[in-house]
Amino acid sequence: MEKRDLIYEGKAKKVYATDDPANLIVCYKDDATAFDGMKKGIICGKGAVNNRMSNYLMQKLSEKGIPTHFLEELNDRETLVRKVAIIPLEIIVRNISAGHFSSRYGVEEGIVFDTPVVEFSYKNDELHDPLLNDDHAVALKLASRKEIELIRSYALRINAYLKEILSEAGITLVDFKLEFGKTDDGSLILADEISPDTCRFWDSMTGEKLDKDRFRRDLGNVEDAYLEMQRRLLGE
Amino acid sequence: MEKRDLIYEGKAKKVYATDDPANLIVCYKDDATAFDGMKKGIICGKGAVNNRMSNYLMQKLSEKGIPTHFLEELNDRETLVRKVAIIPLEIIVRNISAGHFSSRYGVEEGIVFDTPVVEFSYKNDELHDPLLNDDHAVALKLASRKEIELIRSYALRINAYLKEILSEAGITLVDFKLEFGKTDDGSLILADEISPDTCRFWDSMTGEKLDKDRFRRDLGNVEDAYLEMQRRLLGE
Repeated sequence: MEKRDLIYEGKAKKVYATDDPANLIVCYKDDATAFDGMKKGIICGKGAVNNRMSNYLMQKLSEKGIPTHFLEELNDRETLVRKVAIIPLEIIVRNISAGHFSSRYGVEEGIVFDTPVVEFSYKNDELHDPLLNDDHAVALKLASRKEIELIRSYALRINAYLKEILSEAGITLVDFKLEFGKTDDGSLILADEISPDTCRFWDSMTGEKLDKDRFRRDLGNVEDAYLEMQRRLLGE
Repeated sequence: MEKRDLIYEGKAKKVYATDDPANLIVCYKDDATAFDGMKKGIICGKGAVNNRMSNYLMQKLSEKGIPTHFLEELNDRETLVRKVAIIPLEIIVRNISAGHFSSRYGVEEGIVFDTPVVEFSYKNDELHDPLLNDDHAVALKLASRKEIELIRSYALRINAYLKEILSEAGITLVDFKLEFGKTDDGSLILADEISPDTCRFWDSMTGEKLDKDRFRRDLGNVEDAYLEMQRRLLGE
């Protein structure tokens, strides 16, 4: 397997072609952005933490029957993944009120929901990732009704598995974002990453935030939070 | 039946108590607002048009088995209605892209959807009526899952009936907003109004706008559009 041209650079990752057109190499950066790209910074070591944590969690999910793009961890920052056409939906699963849920609907953070809340946004930087519902997504032809149902059912199963894994590490899963993609043969698989960049993790005992909110809200100890999550989940 | 104290004044209507605690009198004003109340004006005669048109359409819907708050038209501007506790959801049904759908998702106006799009907003002026999905509404305890399903099924039936009635009048129903309320005995009924203030009506032949968009967008002939809608539907 040979690394070839850079084909895409996002806010937190670079993506390279390989000699196999079905596979890509993802390289995790230390760059951090927040508030729709208005805030920019560097979180030293973040790329390596996110790469390893995401791979660990995707493998765990894979064992539970969730198909993912993960193929092989190549080194601290690089991973071989299956190439997919990303479905332009951001799927957010919420167990506890926080972030945009709280600001958008005027409620405090920390309200535990009776059942998980699943929401979709249209992944579109120019439009600032607007919230949408199933009917909107279908009308905009972003996904079929069937695909949306499959995504929702995967998202709820992923939530249940992640909550279990994290709870054993003393972490409360507040909310998280997922992205799915379609392979050339048309199957829908989990893509992107699962990391402190894309999840809200609260220490189950103290409530301390161990995720990108430390960067967003200038809470300090940003690098430490990422390393603490790595230590809790990967034991190192 | 006796008209008593003013108990609420909204942007386009006043609501009075009556000697029967189960009933209210709604009085339609000529005041018009748009863009979250930023734009204000008067549309002469609007109150009378909206009162009569809304009553006409609610009676038609009632004949089709949709429960509504309508009881009796008292005069040109005033109607006796059942008192309800309004469910704080604005229900929008869209047949064709326009308005916020177009601006929020970056698509042109006039795209005909394969199936109607139903969306909910949290009726909350301070938060600017944010969009939400079923899970959000349940998490915020605005309505139960069952009530939301009933509202959605009523909304789709109302859409089908209104499209039929309007199409016979040479009008294309682009989109419209509904509100529902609960009576003291707990039943869910259609409330608020159905009028050029709450619907987008396009002339089926010419595409001419015959609704509040003429006011919102300074298109002129605002009063004429309301009167034309009255003429088409009520024949006068």
